[in-house]
Amino acid sequence: MTETVLAILNRPSLDAPAHDPAADAFEFAGPVEAHIAVTDLGITRGDGIFETITVTDGRPQALEAHLARFARSAQMLDLPAPDIDAWRRAIEAAVAELDPVEEAFAKTTLSRGVEGSGRPTGWVYAAPSGDSTEARTAGIAVVTLDRGYRHDVARTSPWLLQGAKTLSYALNMAAVREAERRGADDAIFVSTDGYVLEAPRANVIAAIDGRLVTPRTDIGILPGTTQADIFRFAAERGIDTAFELLTVADIRSADALWLASSVRGAAPIRTLDGAPHAIDRDLSDAINAFLHDRTE
Amino acid sequence: MTETVLAILNRPSLDAPAHDPAADAFEFAGPVEAHIAVTDLGITRGDGIFETITVTDGRPQALEAHLARFARSAQMLDLPAPDIDAWRRAIEAAVAELDPVEEAFAKTTLSRGVEGSGRPTGWVYAAPSGDSTEARTAGIAVVTLDRGYRHDVARTSPWLLQGAKTLSYALNMAAVREAERRGADDAIFVSTDGYVLEAPRANVIAAIDGRLVTPRTDIGILPGTTQADIFRFAAERGIDTAFELLTVADIRSADALWLASSVRGAAPIRTLDGAPHAIDRDLSDAINAFLHDRTE
Repeated sequence: MTETVLAILNRPSLDAPAHDPAADAFEFAGPVEAHIAVTDLGITRGDGIFETITVTDGRPQALEAHLARFARSAQMLDLPAPDIDAWRRAIEAAVAELDPVEEAFAKTTLSRGVEGSGRPTGWVYAAPSGDSTEARTAGIAVVTLDRGYRHDVARTSPWLLQGAKTLSYALNMAAVREAERRGADDAIFVSTDGYVLEAPRANVIAAIDGRLVTPRTDIGILPGTTQADIFRFAAERGIDTAFELLTVADIRSADALWLASSVRGAAPIRTLDGAPHAIDRDLSDAINAFLHDRTE
Repeated sequence: MTETVLAILNRPSLDAPAHDPAADAFEFAGPVEAHIAVTDLGITRGDGIFETITVTDGRPQALEAHLARFARSAQMLDLPAPDIDAWRRAIEAAVAELDPVEEAFAKTTLSRGVEGSGRPTGWVYAAPSGDSTEARTAGIAVVTLDRGYRHDVARTSPWLLQGAKTLSYALNMAAVREAERRGADDAIFVSTDGYVLEAPRANVIAAIDGRLVTPRTDIGILPGTTQADIFRFAAERGIDTAFELLTVADIRSADALWLASSVRGAAPIRTLDGAPHAIDRDLSDAINAFLHDRTE
């Protein structure tokens, strides 16, 4: 058992040559040591994909949903299809190797590999998560930022890779820095034609007239694994849910608002563009308890 | 002397802690071996910048222009300012170490480094270039692709990092694959409001009424180092040059058209969106000869 764990996939995809065909699906390696060549397209071009899976009390959450999205991102980037069975085993083995902690994460990464090799690079990195209690209870300050795209850009220009979870996240990180410059914790991207999209690393959920509503996923955003489980929570409670086009005015007037992501869970928004926003503490607590106690 | 060379910077920026304060500015390392940790933000987030400098007969070309753009990209990403003197020395040393070839390149990369370390990662990778003769003489087939952004997006939304040369190039590579799917070699990005922007890895230059014209650089595109030298060539020949807003119709009706980039040089466009485009072979040859013979 150890604090951080790295499992390197020997054969990240079925249709790419293995490093050693006789080797196991993955092998453990030192998580701090260097494992990536400077010619790997993952670092030279941000040309790859990832998923971050939260692990509560040793249980990887929404694992199949993450693996399905991983495969979908690979397809959008014309990457070789990941060998989902090998990834699942590597994730489970890495998590089993971790010191027992209440909350950890396992991050899967698949890059196009060293340029010219035709062999993708893949690994699972697992580590304890930071403490998200304050974000889940006191809430977070969020600003809206123009994403520069119309809401229909994924349909008109698929080469922009909107809706794929890629390693090219420099602008997502720049958006978070811009939010911090404005005194906030996080951002919500808005389309040029006024629709709420997603946060740089999370989905938006609004409580509107007793329903939970999230932006439609055909507008160039990631379908959220945590958002999906929150909608499952809602279904169990008899709360209606919907995927809709939401404007900034819609979320401003919502009864409550969250950013949903794997590691932080449901973070209630306490200010939006500097204006106070109501928090539904009981509902937030119930959602986060549900997410924590998931068994699948 | 060796075929590929890797120089790792010990202190990529002045205001970040060095790996070893007493060490040299850089050290040579095995170019094929792994040097990057899986937690480096360069690979997990595409959070870093690069430059590719062409080297003809051992001379790094447009070196100061590349270094200045490298520093500008760092500023746009809130990265620690690169120690330009250390980078220049590392580039020159790496190039000197290469086997003598007519055309090579040196690529500089600066990432935000291992998450939480506060220490950027930096290296120079040098290698022989592929043969670009065919692209420079027979020309290339290019298609226009919608970039999804208005031409003024860099002014309205600087967090989108348009105009910075970042490691988040997954969509640039996807655009090239889309071009190949359409039977072409490369793409030209166009703004949603109809203006010609840039290619995924090159600038656009058009010959219009005896002048050389390139898109204005305040529209969210990279200022080109090779484009700048082509304009220097034009000035020496008494050819007028201009930075303008160009529409797709403008480049379709241009007398000649090129994509300009460091390694490939000036590649004349022989078809645009499937329609034949005139090539000015003499001017192309003169430009590429000028680029090859640069001494600064």
